[in-house]
Amino acid sequence: MHAIGVDIGGTKIAAGVVDDRGEIVAQVRRETDADDTASIDAAVADACKELLADHEVGAVGLAAAGFVSPDRRSVLFAPNIAWRNYPLAENVHELLGLDVPIVVENDANAAGWAEFAFGAGQDATDMLMLTVGTGLGGAIVIDRQLVRGKWGVAAEVGHLRVVPGGHYCGCGHEGCWEQYASGSALVRDARAALVAYPTRATRMLELAGGDPEALKGPQITQAAQEGDPLAVDLLATLGRWIGEGAASVAALLDPELIVIGGGVGAAEELLLQPARAAYEEQLSALGHRPTARIELAKHGNEAGIIGAADLARI
Amino acid sequence: MHAIGVDIGGTKIAAGVVDDRGEIVAQVRRETDADDTASIDAAVADACKELLADHEVGAVGLAAAGFVSPDRRSVLFAPNIAWRNYPLAENVHELLGLDVPIVVENDANAAGWAEFAFGAGQDATDMLMLTVGTGLGGAIVIDRQLVRGKWGVAAEVGHLRVVPGGHYCGCGHEGCWEQYASGSALVRDARAALVAYPTRATRMLELAGGDPEALKGPQITQAAQEGDPLAVDLLATLGRWIGEGAASVAALLDPELIVIGGGVGAAEELLLQPARAAYEEQLSALGHRPTARIELAKHGNEAGIIGAADLARI
Amino acid sequence: MHAIGVDIGGTKIAAGVVDDRGEIVAQVRRETDADDTASIDAAVADACKELLADHEVGAVGLAAAGFVSPDRRSVLFAPNIAWRNYPLAENVHELLGLDVPIVVENDANAAGWAEFAFGAGQDATDMLMLTVGTGLGGAIVIDRQLVRGKWGVAAEVGHLRVVPGGHYCGCGHEGCWEQYASGSALVRDARAALVAYPTRATRMLELAGGDPEALKGPQITQAAQEGDPLAVDLLATLGRWIGEGAASVAALLDPELIVIGGGVGAAEELLLQPARAAYEEQLSALGHRPTARIELAKHGNEAGIIGAADLARI
Amino acid sequence: MHAIGVDIGGTKIAAGVVDDRGEIVAQVRRETDADDTASIDAAVADACKELLADHEVGAVGLAAAGFVSPDRRSVLFAPNIAWRNYPLAENVHELLGLDVPIVVENDANAAGWAEFAFGAGQDATDMLMLTVGTGLGGAIVIDRQLVRGKWGVAAEVGHLRVVPGGHYCGCGHEGCWEQYASGSALVRDARAALVAYPTRATRMLELAGGDPEALKGPQITQAAQEGDPLAVDLLATLGRWIGEGAASVAALLDPELIVIGGGVGAAEELLLQPARAAYEEQLSALGHRPTARIELAKHGNEAGIIGAADLARI
Repeated sequence: MHAIGVDIGGTKIAAGVVDDRGEIVAQVRRETDADDTASIDAAVADACKELLADHEVGAVGLAAAGFVSPDRRSVLFAPNIAWRNYPLAENVHELLGLDVPIVVENDANAAGWAEFAFGAGQDATDMLMLTVGTGLGGAIVIDRQLVRGKWGVAAEVGHLRVVPGGHYCGCGHEGCWEQYASGSALVRDARAALVAYPTRATRMLELAGGDPEALKGPQITQAAQEGDPLAVDLLATLGRWIGEGAASVAALLDPELIVIGGGVGAAEELLLQPARAAYEEQLSALGHRPTARIELAKHGNEAGIIGAADLARI
Repeated sequence: MHAIGVDIGGTKIAAGVVDDRGEIVAQVRRETDADDTASIDAAVADACKELLADHEVGAVGLAAAGFVSPDRRSVLFAPNIAWRNYPLAENVHELLGLDVPIVVENDANAAGWAEFAFGAGQDATDMLMLTVGTGLGGAIVIDRQLVRGKWGVAAEVGHLRVVPGGHYCGCGHEGCWEQYASGSALVRDARAALVAYPTRATRMLELAGGDPEALKGPQITQAAQEGDPLAVDLLATLGRWIGEGAASVAALLDPELIVIGGGVGAAEELLLQPARAAYEEQLSALGHRPTARIELAKHGNEAGIIGAADLARI
Repeated sequence: MHAIGVDIGGTKIAAGVVDDRGEIVAQVRRETDADDTASIDAAVADACKELLADHEVGAVGLAAAGFVSPDRRSVLFAPNIAWRNYPLAENVHELLGLDVPIVVENDANAAGWAEFAFGAGQDATDMLMLTVGTGLGGAIVIDRQLVRGKWGVAAEVGHLRVVPGGHYCGCGHEGCWEQYASGSALVRDARAALVAYPTRATRMLELAGGDPEALKGPQITQAAQEGDPLAVDLLATLGRWIGEGAASVAALLDPELIVIGGGVGAAEELLLQPARAAYEEQLSALGHRPTARIELAKHGNEAGIIGAADLARI
Repeated sequence: MHAIGVDIGGTKIAAGVVDDRGEIVAQVRRETDADDTASIDAAVADACKELLADHEVGAVGLAAAGFVSPDRRSVLFAPNIAWRNYPLAENVHELLGLDVPIVVENDANAAGWAEFAFGAGQDATDMLMLTVGTGLGGAIVIDRQLVRGKWGVAAEVGHLRVVPGGHYCGCGHEGCWEQYASGSALVRDARAALVAYPTRATRMLELAGGDPEALKGPQITQAAQEGDPLAVDLLATLGRWIGEGAASVAALLDPELIVIGGGVGAAEELLLQPARAAYEEQLSALGHRPTARIELAKHGNEAGIIGAADLARI
């Protein structure tokens, strides 16, 4: 059965028809306004209609960057879109007038599910997905089931506290994992290093055009791939935080596979090797248990579409 | 259907017949030797036989303090009993010659399940059990399913790292949660306080007969219940670590209920109030989500028997 | 002997004639431009000349917010003024054409010295000054001598690391004391609290006109003085960080007196009480040694003038 | 002028005649009993008398492992000898009947002074001594003066707190520097590593005869010098904690030289290189200030004798 998946961001939406093997057979996009929720409903419905003109689908899944109600119908709260207890599925259903199941899923859960069903995790039963981007998102699969939590708010992995009294987080707390294990943390640490150790930072400073504040993540990866020791160190620090935090998750969940998504994956072994080493160093009872694999995600930006579509037809 | 549950400790075993409502209708005990695994098999079988003389049962569950294989047949490793990849269920089956299912479960999981099925969690679907004793044990229930992990090693909650570079743990790592949130941590902190702030510690010192090293957990609780400020502070610190760590778990799992078991429960509100306050203070997205209840366990030492029996008949 | 003290800030300078008892008998001000160091030289000289018209002085002390050379003649580096290895004393000497000693002192050292010589520390021999403002500045007096360090950079107390992996600091490092024990930290924590615990934060939010980002330090103090529990907690947290850090300094220096300066002093006992409690709790060997007093500074903004003048005539 | 220095330990004392260049020209030893303070007085006097038979001396310095009164006459408190407000100098004076100055100094201060006056620090004016042994002792020299503090308790560097909530310390607190930067910490971490990463630890386990608890510090150094990666890592971790803590001290005191004493010095560059790297990484305002040298001590066990003798004649 084909299904539509829609990835709803603050400023644009992407919708696609997804087949049984997780392939996107058609895709459309729309611009949106994060403050005008009715227009988002309309854009979602409009995008779906365009796809429905040429494709028969049995379900629609909507990936939303926010807290989703346990019945998968509403968005309870979203940080970047004006959704508050918002009946997203019902609204889209009314606009679409189509008699198929429409469900809402958290976007990180959708992306993680795409990886589980059709990507790095397709042979696994118990998986932790970590999406290392602006923040640290995640998804948890236990015994082939996506973990949504009692109120739909599970897998907010970025807010595991890893350092008491640690870095401030936008959530109002201190020491959240995403302040150490995210692309933002990498860039912030690199910029601080340009200030603190100017003599070690020449290559990155050059790539940033001489302005520490202009430094971007891919430039750090590039410098590291060229062999710049400071950039290598920075990626190793990021990898270490990923691995150490994952070991804490493993103490709770004993996964067989940890999948790393997000742009920092471009650093490949420069990131994975320290992540794996730190994971093993921190894993309790190492030697008395198998150790989870840590691998890169196979899907990129389209994971939200694929996962939302697939979760809708389950 | 009645089932037998057996709680196997290092020096003794307790076996009971458990009915459908989680009541123990008969119970027997045996002494054992932690280094002689064959004698443990024999003692388990012998205890079961005594119970079987008067009771008809449909299943046998063995609660073991160790890592249990995912097929619930063997103990992979135990810290205090000489089990290494040990076929416990099969051995007991051969000795018992009874044609009913025999399964092995981790003892903390069994105790947590007793609480879930017949105790504080019987109306819940998603529960975190924390057994605050010598260490910090736990059990995780998601959507009414016990979480065992890919290799049977899930819910080792005590080894979540809460302080990088923190207290040494017997597992070889630093900063494990159980070094902050356990009865042992409470006693250790109290003894340190007797050294560091002798003038504040008079009541506890008195209860300990003047010897800091002789201080026991119940004396701390007693002093606190009498109003001793230092003892109250110590229990509050324990409660805070329980609550803060639980908030990290909640970031991953979004439970509706957190159950606190173990001897420190005797402190009641002196422990629960700070645990709840810390949980709410550390919970990400407070105000945009419901908050889990934190309650005391209803079962005591017999939880292992009850949970193992019930898990065996599922 | 009278002496002139000049406190040189980024946008203005204040100069005064100081008598032997630390009283300012005359004072003048000038506006300056932080990027134009020659104009600062000229403004300093001009202010001095105005004072010299009516007063006879035997020395001139210049308090500069930067690293000062050990010979007290130059500013090695300043974060907010364009001084780099800048011969400040010599320049002022040439412009002034006056044959008296002219010395440069770090501004926090000057302020601390004013407190030592004429304020809270005038009966002490060993003192730690902590100026809790935008950052955390300090001064150290050992056996009646100001500690300047080998290269003039001592007493940068704000950059003692108190939390590994802790809050980012403008210096490029993590976990610096001033990120926990400063007015900025207080305001930042309060703003975060308005986000994280909106229901507890009503009074402060009201004082801030409903906008968390508009909250100012004095409003926190006001709310605390009115009895608002969250504001009281925030000041207690600040006090605790002050006291705990001071205990680390005491492990090194064994002072008899710790003086707290800066605007947060307005909170008085709401700050001092938790600072003293935390200091005692963290002090090693408490009970086997006397405990330093912790008191508020007696001088306000004029401490830099007074201290610089007095240090110039020593 | 020659002087006698006496290093008083819990079970033995060593006394020597020290010349103006810090050379020991004669030395004697005595056994003592830590619980019998009068016998220690007698043994000290007896050892001095033996030396005085052949040598003319102008002063006697007694190095004591405890808190020494600011007037250098008494021991306020000692952890391992039964001294409590004990008039050590007076007692020895009466027994000795010699009309020369007799002073008491803290043993770590004495050892640091030996290094300052006749060892690695003889060209320095501002020095931090770190004695990395069972604990972490220290001495501070500022502008050629030994810093004793208001009450004689300065330079207890081992109790600087480096990790809030960190390792327990015998002093009753948590996270003291000596729990991370001492020979004991090295051995403890190594033993934990043998448990946590058995496959990486083969060489050290071999040197320890197969028993983790039998592992000693010199075996870690030996394994590291042979190239064992885990042992190299462990020494690097020790070095890093030394360097990072020293950077915090430098924020306060701006020393020109940091001297590392104690048995771990045998590891030489395997320890110093990471210590220096960590010091520079953590030093605030690196690039705007000179960086202190970090060097090994030149004196070994005799430093206490030499320093006590020299401090007595100042």
